[in-house]
Amino acid sequence: MLKGLIEKLGNQKVSQSESELYRHSGDESSHTRVEPDFVFFPENVEDVVKVLQLANEYDVPVTPYGAGSGLEGQAIPINKGISVNFDQMNKVVEFFPEDLMITVEPGMTRLQLNEYVNKHGLYFPIDPGADASIGGMVATNASGTTAVRYGSMRDQVLDLEVVLANGSIIHTGSKAKKSSSGYHLNGIFTGSEGTLGIITKVTVKLHGIPEKVLAARCTFETPGECAEAAQAVLSSGIQIMRMELVDAESIKQVNEYGNYTFPEAHSLFFEFAGSPNIVEEEATVVEELMKEFGCKNWEHANSSKERIELWKARHEMAYAYKHIKGKVSTGSDSCVPISKLAEMVVFGRKLLEESGLVGGVFGHVGDGNFHTLVMYDPNNSVEVEKAEYTNSQIALKAIKLGGTCTGEHGVGLGKMKYQVAEHGEAVELMKSVKALFDPKGILNPGKMFYI
Amino acid sequence: MLKGLIEKLGNQKVSQSESELYRHSGDESSHTRVEPDFVFFPENVEDVVKVLQLANEYDVPVTPYGAGSGLEGQAIPINKGISVNFDQMNKVVEFFPEDLMITVEPGMTRLQLNEYVNKHGLYFPIDPGADASIGGMVATNASGTTAVRYGSMRDQVLDLEVVLANGSIIHTGSKAKKSSSGYHLNGIFTGSEGTLGIITKVTVKLHGIPEKVLAARCTFETPGECAEAAQAVLSSGIQIMRMELVDAESIKQVNEYGNYTFPEAHSLFFEFAGSPNIVEEEATVVEELMKEFGCKNWEHANSSKERIELWKARHEMAYAYKHIKGKVSTGSDSCVPISKLAEMVVFGRKLLEESGLVGGVFGHVGDGNFHTLVMYDPNNSVEVEKAEYTNSQIALKAIKLGGTCTGEHGVGLGKMKYQVAEHGEAVELMKSVKALFDPKGILNPGKMFYI
Ligand SMILES: Cc1cc2nc3c(=O)[nH]c(=O)nc-3n(C[C@H](O)[C@H](O)[C@H](O)COP(=O)(O)OP(=O)(O)OC[C@H]3O[C@@H](n4cnc5c(N)ncnc54)[C@H](O)[C@@H]3O)c2cc1C
Ligand SMILES: Cc1cc2nc3c(=O)[nH]c(=O)nc-3n(C[C@H](O)[C@H](O)[C@H](O)COP(=O)(O)OP(=O)(O)OC[C@H]3O[C@@H](n4cnc5c(N)ncnc54)[C@H](O)[C@@H]3O)c2cc1C
Repeated sequence: MLKGLIEKLGNQKVSQSESELYRHSGDESSHTRVEPDFVFFPENVEDVVKVLQLANEYDVPVTPYGAGSGLEGQAIPINKGISVNFDQMNKVVEFFPEDLMITVEPGMTRLQLNEYVNKHGLYFPIDPGADASIGGMVATNASGTTAVRYGSMRDQVLDLEVVLANGSIIHTGSKAKKSSSGYHLNGIFTGSEGTLGIITKVTVKLHGIPEKVLAARCTFETPGECAEAAQAVLSSGIQIMRMELVDAESIKQVNEYGNYTFPEAHSLFFEFAGSPNIVEEEATVVEELMKEFGCKNWEHANSSKERIELWKARHEMAYAYKHIKGKVSTGSDSCVPISKLAEMVVFGRKLLEESGLVGGVFGHVGDGNFHTLVMYDPNNSVEVEKAEYTNSQIALKAIKLGGTCTGEHGVGLGKMKYQVAEHGEAVELMKSVKALFDPKGILNPGKMFYI
Repeated sequence: MLKGLIEKLGNQKVSQSESELYRHSGDESSHTRVEPDFVFFPENVEDVVKVLQLANEYDVPVTPYGAGSGLEGQAIPINKGISVNFDQMNKVVEFFPEDLMITVEPGMTRLQLNEYVNKHGLYFPIDPGADASIGGMVATNASGTTAVRYGSMRDQVLDLEVVLANGSIIHTGSKAKKSSSGYHLNGIFTGSEGTLGIITKVTVKLHGIPEKVLAARCTFETPGECAEAAQAVLSSGIQIMRMELVDAESIKQVNEYGNYTFPEAHSLFFEFAGSPNIVEEEATVVEELMKEFGCKNWEHANSSKERIELWKARHEMAYAYKHIKGKVSTGSDSCVPISKLAEMVVFGRKLLEESGLVGGVFGHVGDGNFHTLVMYDPNNSVEVEKAEYTNSQIALKAIKLGGTCTGEHGVGLGKMKYQVAEHGEAVELMKSVKALFDPKGILNPGKMFYI
């Protein structure tokens, strides 16, 4: 059966090599790997239409695969079938510099996109850290350190070309900056994790590269104080570019890992960006505010070299943890109303202490989104259990406080179990939407909801 | 039949008075009035559940009614049945000042909401001019003069409580500022014009009242130059608060109507808002930029009194036109990529000249959204025809240029005919979403799509 299917798709666009099957069996999470039957590399939208038509005919699952940087196993083809890889669909379709807008194929990565547009004084600001594909970022509604200013992917997507499960091609928006026409399909496909359709073109907003960027860092006695200080910055109305919390434990890990001497205290990292006078003014206002809140060690940086130095502890944190031998990482991704952030951060820190596992609390505190990262030995069932317990306690508490179990990483396999707790009755509606868009259940089956 | 239905709803919550039937037969548009069979005034979500359950049982249409300020006939119960009015559901449910967030009932109006939160130094920025209800603003995805900074309702909605056609109650989001959990139901209900469910609670973001507001105005030789200058402001990355275009004809109307002496030229109106130093800096940068683009008559205002004076021509424009005796107004609401705005504005101006009707071009040029307003005699079929022709030419050209037929007013009755031109195949998907959410077609039937 597979052989006939592969022939119809064109042998040269398919791979069953061991390395490709392995690559497409997992992402950056620690969810169990499952290999697809084969990997298909479409070159254009017609190829995507074809794979979906054939998948219908042969009743085979189709799972889109971006850069595989997902943290919830979204791209793992758990029911096997076809993994659809967009490496060959990574080109600019149309560039509209004067409209601050670009249309690209989904396989283009964030860094490729920025390389292309930076030359024109523009940039695409959503920054999940990893060099994710634009298609994957849309599919997970990614965000990251700049969300406090630019929101998440959903706020940047203007239009998508999507191939539906039945092979028909639609556009979900337009090139207008806002619209009240028709139902908001942009929104529903963004964050749908390949379960409602396959994205073949993405039109996103671009932004002018800020003339000037300033960075700063300061420390507080407790993570709770960090969160409260961050809240004050938000209330001030200042259009901050980034505002990150890194707890003392994580700074300690970075110091050990890189032989640094960063102050081992709960830290806030800031970035200000815009026209020079405005940025200087913003930094001054925030410095005063932080000092009112009793911060220590205020440092700021001007040149790009100094900035990188100042933010190093934030940037190297994930690597510092991952460096720990014999352990793998897992983590939480909750997002709560800002007033609940201090409580959550303290709760997370306490859970980590109680677990006895090494781990840190950090996050994009400008949006109330924070992560815990826990290191555990995957072969030690007690540690596995404890890590899982920490994650679930945090997710459930966030939901109880009116927040979400996932602020940016998405549902995939890891957050399915919290969907009813978070969305209640609405899960039934979501499932019926899934059944409407994909009646045969061929699109990334087994993700997001228990059907 | 109706009698039994009314009894079950409770006589005291129903009105069949002539004045109420008349009030609920139309909105601010010139679409033909149709009276509902009766008006129901729910007091809580249970009442809304009840009306939907009974509407199912009796197979009667249900059309939500906000403040009736809609411009596309969305609230007109064209198939009669029950008009559901939210005047009794206009309270604050929960206020979270430290989270810059509030939950209100849908009947609360924009000004009521601001009156409530302003005391706490906060405000809700979406400003469609009219004192619309929050429920109606969600249902039409309203925006207005502040969209250049705050986007539209969809960007401000965090959570909705919605009663579905079958009477079940769901929440569409959470109180977190961002989320990647589940399908984006917030987005699909926002802008659904009462066709997918009835909104019974709305949680929106609030913002700190800017410390300082500055206003400015300048003129250009042609509307095209205005649009190009506006584009330059956007590219500069300055976080402007409002930026409006008003053409010379409209200024002339205002001068005649109010005996003013505003310079009768194509004008740009600006508002800057934020902390004092930053705002001053922004105004200076824009002034220099506008002068580079050859603006005339740059004027700026500091005090709130001067500001109102400076913006008067913008604020009084609609009234000035409506003052013309024997005529009614209609208009277009297209939104296009910024680079196409000059072309559209020139096109709109030319169509108006050719029609021989009195009318103006103006709009929220910061988002590429602009309006034409045409005055015509509803009893003169040639004028009716010409007005309609102008509107349709603009809508179709906007769609051709990659834009939308409605940037903010919504589809209702007036923009149904452009849905296929704008959305193509996606209309079929939208219709199937409608059929899924409302299988019996009881929710505001006859709107948005031709079924
Ligand atoms: C070190 C590190 C830091 C991270 N930090 C952040 C962060 O700060 N914020 C954040 O949001 N994320 C973060 N992530 C997670 C990850 O980068 C994002 O989830 C990213 O959006 C995934 O993109 P991808 O291209 O790697 O997608 P993949 O992992 O390959 O796939 C993700 C999902 O997208 C679907 N998909 C991919 N392409 C398409 C398509 N064309 N059509 C339809 N569906 C498609 C897949 O089926 C899958 O469901 C981080 C990851 C790492 C490793
Ligand atoms: C002078 C003037 C200027 C305007 N300028 C703008 C502008 O700049 N920008 C802009 O966006 N609009 C503008 N409008 C249009 C209008 O104000 C908006 O469309 C507004 O959002 C309508 O709100 P409403 O409460 O009056 O709703 P209504 O007109 O009563 O109803 C509108 C739609 O919402 C639905 N609805 C109402 N309540 C609910 C509910 N609880 N649940 C579900 N559906 C509901 C109704 O069924 C209907 O489909 C203007 C109108 C006027 C008169």
